[in-house]
Amino acid sequence: MSQACVALIAVTGVAVAMGSMAFAAQANNQAPVSPIYGVTLPQGYREWTVIAPAQEAAPLDELRVVVGNAVAVKAYRDGTLPFPDGAVLVKLAWKRVPSSEFAPASIPGAATTVQVMVKDSHRYASTGGWGFGRFINGTPADEAQHRTCHACHQSAVKDHDLVFTRYAP
Amino acid sequence: MSQACVALIAVTGVAVAMGSMAFAAQANNQAPVSPIYGVTLPQGYREWTVIAPAQEAAPLDELRVVVGNAVAVKAYRDGTLPFPDGAVLVKLAWKRVPSSEFAPASIPGAATTVQVMVKDSHRYASTGGWGFGRFINGTPADEAQHRTCHACHQSAVKDHDLVFTRYAP
Repeated sequence: MSQACVALIAVTGVAVAMGSMAFAAQANNQAPVSPIYGVTLPQGYREWTVIAPAQEAAPLDELRVVVGNAVAVKAYRDGTLPFPDGAVLVKLAWKRVPSSEFAPASIPGAATTVQVMVKDSHRYASTGGWGFGRFINGTPADEAQHRTCHACHQSAVKDHDLVFTRYAP
Repeated sequence: MSQACVALIAVTGVAVAMGSMAFAAQANNQAPVSPIYGVTLPQGYREWTVIAPAQEAAPLDELRVVVGNAVAVKAYRDGTLPFPDGAVLVKLAWKRVPSSEFAPASIPGAATTVQVMVKDSHRYASTGGWGFGRFINGTPADEAQHRTCHACHQSAVKDHDLVFTRYAP
């Protein structure tokens, strides 16, 4: 058997194994995990503390709120950088729609994505200590989308440990 | 002494007494209270659960997040209307400024107002069961501003117990 053929079988085997793992996770009611990083939607994040809202212009045209777990909130308030292991940030996003009751206001429409950053300096050493997850209706986006996370954060965020969001006072 | 003069002295006395009470509250490190309603900034509201973000167009040009206490959040999730006594909502607001790191995004600038709604169907029976407070840097806005709260909510909100904000899923 040629080396190329061995390699193809090996790659196919890995792909099948990964597909089976994802299927097994869903079948067992385990939380779906993001590709590359294995990040899940954290339990209870909808109750977490607000870090800050944001607005994203068209074409996405969204309203967003970033919330953080206790480790993340403490780091923000203490000004601790880099963020310590265990810090988790979640960004909730919705389409931006006009209020039908108060003309100057825009409010959330349909939910779009929920995006997660998990700090684990060992597990995610090759991506600045952060693992990423992007979920749509609870289902992880594909690997191609997850390939863009770290590169964008690394190139755009200035001196804030790859985290765009600052704490809104 | 004329009746008008007696009335003026009485009104002046009430005003002086109210001013003294406000001064005494601040001197004793008690929480400042809103005019008309006597609403305070609730303890720990910065940790409360997100109800929804919003954007307000120019001239205010703000980003906002409404958070709720446990009573309010339960009412939202259960679809309970009118809101039960003890429900408290707080709206945090900031100037909307462009992100210097990510062009499509607008983010919070300086904090502007913090606005509070407290449900107490007995105490606030004459204003639909809601008491209002509007604070700037922790200091209540004046009585004229507080006169506008109930009238606007009553005229504009449709079938949602005077509360503009709906829960963002």
